[in-house]
Amino acid sequence: MHSSIQIFLCEHNLDGFLFVGDSICDADMYYLSHFLAGDRFALLAREKTTMLISSMEKGRALLESIADECLSTSQYQIMEKLKRCEKPEEAYLQVLEEFLRDHGIKRLGVPFRFPAGIYQPLSQDFEVSVMDSPAGRCREIKRQEELDAIACTQRACERAMRRAVLLIGSSTPRGEMLYRDCQPLTSEEVRGAIEVSLLEDGCEATDTIVAGGLAGADPHARGTGPIAANAPIVIDIFPRSKSSRYFADMTRTVLRGEASPEVKEIYEAVRLAQDKGLQAIRAGVSGREVHSQVSQVFLDQGYPEREGRGFTHSTGHGVGLDIHEKPSLSETGEVLQSSHVVTVEPGLYYPEIGGVRLEDLIVVKENGCENLTHFERQLVL
Amino acid sequence: MHSSIQIFLCEHNLDGFLFVGDSICDADMYYLSHFLAGDRFALLAREKTTMLISSMEKGRALLESIADECLSTSQYQIMEKLKRCEKPEEAYLQVLEEFLRDHGIKRLGVPFRFPAGIYQPLSQDFEVSVMDSPAGRCREIKRQEELDAIACTQRACERAMRRAVLLIGSSTPRGEMLYRDCQPLTSEEVRGAIEVSLLEDGCEATDTIVAGGLAGADPHARGTGPIAANAPIVIDIFPRSKSSRYFADMTRTVLRGEASPEVKEIYEAVRLAQDKGLQAIRAGVSGREVHSQVSQVFLDQGYPEREGRGFTHSTGHGVGLDIHEKPSLSETGEVLQSSHVVTVEPGLYYPEIGGVRLEDLIVVKENGCENLTHFERQLVL
Repeated sequence: MHSSIQIFLCEHNLDGFLFVGDSICDADMYYLSHFLAGDRFALLAREKTTMLISSMEKGRALLESIADECLSTSQYQIMEKLKRCEKPEEAYLQVLEEFLRDHGIKRLGVPFRFPAGIYQPLSQDFEVSVMDSPAGRCREIKRQEELDAIACTQRACERAMRRAVLLIGSSTPRGEMLYRDCQPLTSEEVRGAIEVSLLEDGCEATDTIVAGGLAGADPHARGTGPIAANAPIVIDIFPRSKSSRYFADMTRTVLRGEASPEVKEIYEAVRLAQDKGLQAIRAGVSGREVHSQVSQVFLDQGYPEREGRGFTHSTGHGVGLDIHEKPSLSETGEVLQSSHVVTVEPGLYYPEIGGVRLEDLIVVKENGCENLTHFERQLVL
Repeated sequence: MHSSIQIFLCEHNLDGFLFVGDSICDADMYYLSHFLAGDRFALLAREKTTMLISSMEKGRALLESIADECLSTSQYQIMEKLKRCEKPEEAYLQVLEEFLRDHGIKRLGVPFRFPAGIYQPLSQDFEVSVMDSPAGRCREIKRQEELDAIACTQRACERAMRRAVLLIGSSTPRGEMLYRDCQPLTSEEVRGAIEVSLLEDGCEATDTIVAGGLAGADPHARGTGPIAANAPIVIDIFPRSKSSRYFADMTRTVLRGEASPEVKEIYEAVRLAQDKGLQAIRAGVSGREVHSQVSQVFLDQGYPEREGRGFTHSTGHGVGLDIHEKPSLSETGEVLQSSHVVTVEPGLYYPEIGGVRLEDLIVVKENGCENLTHFERQLVL
């Protein structure tokens, strides 16, 4: 990691690359520091990585962080500066500039998401270039321990999916709804079971999708209330491990009751399209090509994308410390490389029927892919 | 909200204020839209609020968002632009600029955290000023429904605290550790009980602190492994409601076994300091003044802050859609106003003893404060 950052700095004639933000929201900062903090800190990447944090966080940073050096804002007299400055931001900026000068920085790279409020004044005293973060590049290709972490989250994801499928499978279709213990089974109940399972496995998940019936026609609808019988139920779980911070991602579509011939056909088309995507993936092939092959399957099966109906999204996205990261399997998809981790998730959506999506998580290999998803694809429970 | 943003734009001679980011990390964007999305979107605030989102999100946005208008990037031909541009960011920028021109924007405000990678090119075609977000100002003063949401999260927080306290109270001190069912009671076990309780109440929490013995001397240490007997255990819970997105925050310090006279005295000093803080708060008093009075109690009781020992942090911070927001009760604390929500959390920390902290969450009122925390302060269980 350090060496690739040094090469990057050399190529761009920079003295260092600076991040300012919190490592809950900025995965690059977590990647480089392994220090999880909701409050803002600074991280300077050069031949070594140096963190600039509040003195309150220093003890924890020394224990938890993999940065080579931890300096505190109080070493730069933040309190005295706060008393002199009209706005706290001015004091922070003075500290940051002293810190950079101390480290001999003149030419500086900052990432695309760097705060404009710091970029602007910093540009007056330093030569600052906004560019793609070198950490982002490193993050795309997963190391073995990262692959292990993702696989571990995926196992938790599948245990949670199992619980959801068993719960739906144990319900009774009656009229238009599913029932359990004489009560309608709700999206909230299934989502609750998923979340408890994830919690037991040290994972957290926001926005888990349990969208039955017509709600499933919107790929991002979360689902609320009673779940429809005899209609597809999209279950999309994308948990993050609280310890490793790595995500996993999977979707299954299930149905309790009687499936109409139309829904069965849609499910088959999605399964075929997913198989095609999985077969197409190997190092050297572009995400664009994979997406194009998957889209072609839908066209061949008589499911064109038109006016928000059919296959309305891309085939997949990278997964790691962010749930959506590079590379993508889409119109703009980059060339895939060994140890990329991506989802393969074709789907078909019709407002009058609902949605069907199947999503696996895979590791790109030289001659194909390794599927991290070991969960069966079965529509009718 | 709209009217205060209009006044802000008028005062600064701006046509609009633009946010670009995701509303999971940017609470201003959630505040203005009530649309929760982990993927980037744009939000333009003027006499009305307009979101610019991907077409995939449009259905959900129309259902969930309180924005006055939702436009999709496909209405600005994002796909065609992506095909023509070398980098996806260029295509996005073209869409954004067309969107701004369509809305007659020339002079534009952006927040401090606005991405430098968009600020820089945008500044070449528009008059862009980086400034404190008008939403940030609005967010400090809570409306009644926000106060209700915070109080509701606080109730969940206290139920979780009760579970932790009962669990520790049911343990047996033996030698240097606490035991339950012949096993050492661990920080992880207590944190697990807290998290399950929060989940049942529709809340989530990261970084819950259960730090016993010497670990408690670092105010931000989370705590791991067996919990020490006869030593203070700092329990700091700051959950967020998954539905309202509002946080609560509280800390109690408890001890199972025998408390030394020294720890009892420290606890009493912290309790006195907290009482003083609670008494000092009312609209018109500055956070700086409250912090100064709390610090004075510690000085008077013989607990000076010196070289990272004693009262090493500020007295409190605002709580809302962010866990740390304005105003602060600190050296730089602003004047408090009615319906500010802040924590009052003095603490004392000694590496050879551990830590004691007590934290309540209060609403600032004209003539005092309303304490949202109804949990007893009791050291020895």
